[in-house]
Order: sequence, then structure tokens, then C-alpha cells
Amino acid sequence: MAFDRLIENIVRTQNPSVVGLDPKLEYVPQFIIDKQVAKHGKTLKAAAKALLQFNKAIIDEVHDICPAIKPQAAYYEMYGYEGVKTLYKTIRYAQENGMFVMTDGKRNDIGATMEAYATAHLGLTDICGEQVEAFGADALTVNGYLGTDGIAPLLEKCKQYDKGIFVLVKTSNKSSGELQDLKLESGKTIYSQMGDMCEGWGAECMGKYGYSGVGAVVGATYPEQLAEMRAQLPHTFFLVPGYGAQGGGAEGVAKAFDANGLGAIVNSSRGVMCAYKKEGCDEKDFAKAARREVIRMKEDIISYLPKVALPE
Amino acid sequence: MAFDRLIENIVRTQNPSVVGLDPKLEYVPQFIIDKQVAKHGKTLKAAAKALLQFNKAIIDEVHDICPAIKPQAAYYEMYGYEGVKTLYKTIRYAQENGMFVMTDGKRNDIGATMEAYATAHLGLTDICGEQVEAFGADALTVNGYLGTDGIAPLLEKCKQYDKGIFVLVKTSNKSSGELQDLKLESGKTIYSQMGDMCEGWGAECMGKYGYSGVGAVVGATYPEQLAEMRAQLPHTFFLVPGYGAQGGGAEGVAKAFDANGLGAIVNSSRGVMCAYKKEGCDEKDFAKAARREVIRMKEDIISYLPKVALPE
Repeated sequence: MAFDRLIENIVRTQNPSVVGLDPKLEYVPQFIIDKQVAKHGKTLKAAAKALLQFNKAIIDEVHDICPAIKPQAAYYEMYGYEGVKTLYKTIRYAQENGMFVMTDGKRNDIGATMEAYATAHLGLTDICGEQVEAFGADALTVNGYLGTDGIAPLLEKCKQYDKGIFVLVKTSNKSSGELQDLKLESGKTIYSQMGDMCEGWGAECMGKYGYSGVGAVVGATYPEQLAEMRAQLPHTFFLVPGYGAQGGGAEGVAKAFDANGLGAIVNSSRGVMCAYKKEGCDEKDFAKAARREVIRMKEDIISYLPKVALPE
Repeated sequence: MAFDRLIENIVRTQNPSVVGLDPKLEYVPQFIIDKQVAKHGKTLKAAAKALLQFNKAIIDEVHDICPAIKPQAAYYEMYGYEGVKTLYKTIRYAQENGMFVMTDGKRNDIGATMEAYATAHLGLTDICGEQVEAFGADALTVNGYLGTDGIAPLLEKCKQYDKGIFVLVKTSNKSSGELQDLKLESGKTIYSQMGDMCEGWGAECMGKYGYSGVGAVVGATYPEQLAEMRAQLPHTFFLVPGYGAQGGGAEGVAKAFDANGLGAIVNSSRGVMCAYKKEGCDEKDFAKAARREVIRMKEDIISYLPKVALPE
């Protein structure tokens, strides 16, 4: 199952963190933008090519010390279909460099349409008998508001192609509680109910390290809920956004992990992509600055973990 | 506000229905596919070009009798970035033909990222000072699980560019009740709570016909909940999927409308796209068959409405 490969990558690199590639043009060094604008004008194509060059340089610098990337679909869609082409090429390039790729798309729909999303992002598209990869990520974030028949088509792909999903449970944003924290008649919160549904869906696709192919998104900004969910959902791997720029600290995110230092992966996007700005180094040094930040973040997180090892 | 333009289109065509363009390759007549495969091989590009030709022919035939199209993003993503290019071109072509375009993407994320989705689908992307339209739909479906800060960036675009959104409230699928029908401590269901949130968000962008720019998705397959939501949410325009193929009938969907025959638009996708298959006519006649089905559906729906007219 997909998270087995992710877990093996994490143990190999001793790094339970993922680089979020959410490349707004304003994060990209000017010399890269200038080159593409000179060639293509102030167009979506120029922007998309600049993003790709930026992403590839970061992947070149971090692939040996970082298990995964998480491209956020929104930032590619913002640059139109040219941007979406850059998403595709980024996924390919990261995988060629041994990284696990989680497309952050938070997709959701009813059965037949969810099947199309599952095919798009995790499966193979049939073109008159030819099987073609449309995007081919290793995992996809999804929203479970529509219930089981919005999730079932994904489980099929997870089993067939060794992939995984992360379902939104408790998100990192300030207003996440407006709906997610409301209590049901049962006394459970909505996020806790969603968490239980993840455990249920995951039972169909268990991996060899105790975690299923159905993970959950639980924000670093809510350490108490992280701890609660870790205890309640023993087979659910967590994707933890909100570290760094959004205010989540390493001590809090440590609550997302199990006794082996597994069970979670922590995302940082802006912190890594814009490390060169924070450092104030030459913008040509942006990729090496990203590497330095990945190492700093990894050391910060693992300093709160007992170890990062496969279960004995 | 955006739904004013939609409402005017509905009254002009006397048709409160929308054609869902969810073009799987298997819906496309073989002669179109053969032509593109001959040129481009069994590739995503061939598929994407076939879908575009299919969509354009349907738009040519229905734009004078139908107020809107609803392209479902999943089916374009399934054909990779080439498919997403077809989504872009379909949106442009429908708008050039006077149709209102609702991209069905069910997008959702936290503030900064939702801003990117809002820019992608409803706004303008800044490329070094140049403002470029990435997709430029008139409305977007979204998922409100993340609360207000996942919706606020959309409201900005709605106000700035005269656009609208539809928030998932009660979806048409069988398992929609697993989460959406659960009762909160307050006694309200989750879908009803989400409906109230729509009314709240919509207060910021009211249109001149009594409906705000924040609509709701409420499935045709649940007529009782349609009636409940219509009564509870007087300023919320409904997008009603599930008519036809999914089993929702015109008598049931009539409950989504107000006394003027406004307040809702009913979607049919497969019914229209595959009308030529159901009719058993020559596949070259597919677009005219789609037109016949649009007329049949419109007459079916309005036969249950008192009128379709602007408020006096």
C-alpha cells in the first residue's frame, strides 16, 4: 500500500517532513521570471515555465534528504492550463528523483465523478484501449463531505495502483472549527466523526507497517486535536499542515507521531520555497537555501521524537 | 451580482436548466474520436481535442435555448493538462455564445490557497503587472467544510468581478447522509447548518432579484430536503444535480423553486450528452439530439412551475 513507500522514504531520509510546492510567482526569484518573460512575454506560459524551473531546482537540492513533495493544485490552476502542465511535469520530475508525490487537490464529488478524479490523479486513463497516466501522483488529498460513495472510487485506485489518500479531518485554518468542531448528538465532534470514517475506509487497504492507505489531514495549529486523533485513529497516517508560517511548532506536531516516530508527515511550503528571502541570501542561492531550511526543519521535528524507525 | 446575469438568462430562455458538460470519451461519437486518433494517436491530446469538438457542437445547438453550462472539472483533469486546456476553451466558447458558465470543481482550501483557486476560476492572475484570465468561469462550486476563511476569498472575487459560488449543502448521492444528515447538539442537521452558513456568507453580496452570489448545491434526489432548504434559505440560489440519470424527477425538483419559478437551476449531464444514444439516432446527429433533450427537459420542469419571471 502506498503509505508503505512513503514510510520507507521517511525512514531512509530520517525526515518526517514534506516540501509543499505551492509556487506563487512572487516566490520565484526575479532572474528566473525575467528569463521566461523575455522569451514568452507576460503570459501564463512564461509564469508556468518559471514555476517549473523553480520547482526542479528545489527538487534537485532536496530529493536526497526529503521523502516527498506536496504540490498544491490551486497554485498551478492559477496559471491556467499552462500551470497545470507544470504540475504534471513537477510530479514526473520528483518521482524520477525518488520522491513520493502527494497532490494537494482536496478533490471531492459523487461516485461517477469521483471516479474521474481518482483516474486523473491516481490512476490510468483509457484512450481507446491505451492506458495513459494523466497526472499520476502517489497520493491525493480529498474532502469526505459527500460520504462513502465519494471515497470508494479512490480506494479502488489505492488498491490497484498502490496509492494513498488523505481525507480532511481537522484543518489548520482559524475558522476550521465553525463546522468541524460542532458537536453531534452523539457527543462527538464532526472532525472526530470524519476521523472514524477514515479508519473505516482504511480497513480495506492496510499496509505492512500498521497504517492504511487512507490518511487524514490534521493541522499543526491544533496540537490538542492532533493528540486526540493520534490516540483515536491508530491506523490512519497524518498529513500535518500549518507548521512554521501558519504558527504550528515542532513540540505540538510531535503529538501526531507514534512511538516509532512514524504515523505523520509535516508539511512546510512557504518556509522552504522562500527560505532565500528569509535568509536574505543572493536569490541565485534559493535552492540551496531551501535545502538548508529542509535540514533545519527536519532537525527541529526529530528533536522531539524518540526515533524514526520501522516497527520491529 | 453574478446570479442576476444567470437569472436574466433563465428568464430570457424560459429555461431553468443547465447542461452539464462532463464529457467522458465514451460519450463522444466514434467519428469524432476516430478523426483525432488518426491525427494524434491514442493520446490525451487526441482525447482532449475530441472532447472540445463534442462540446462546441453541443453549445452551438443549445446556446439559444439554454441559459448555462456546467463543465465538471474532473472529466477534463482525467485527460491531463490537454484536457484542462479543453476546459478552458469550452468556457471561452460558451461565454462567447452568451451562456453563463459554472465550473463544477467543488474546490476548497484554507485562506491563502483558496485565494489561488478563486483567482484561477473566477478572477485574474497577475503576471508581472499584466492581469490574465486563467479559466474565467462565471461561477464555481465549492465545499465549505473548512469554514469562513475558505469562503471569504471567493466572496471578494464575486464582488469584484460579478461572479458567484455554489456551496455543497445536501448532495445528490446515496451516501450523502452519512455525514450531512447527522444531527448536531442544536438539533439541526449538518446540511442545514451549512445552508445557514450560505445565507450568512451571501449577505455580503446580494443581487437585485433577491438572491445573493452564494448559492447552494441541493440534490434533486432529496425532494424533501429541497423543500426544507427552499423555505429556510430565501436568498440562496440552488444548483440542483441529480435530475434524470440519477433518478430525480421534475415534480420533486419543483420544490427547489420560488413563486416566480426562480431560485434554482436543474442540471442534466448524461441525459443531454448521450441523448443520441438513448434515441438510437445516427451518431452524427448527436448535437441535434442534445437540443431535443434540452427542450424535453425544460418542458418537463416548467410544467410544474407557475411561471418563470423576474420578480415584480
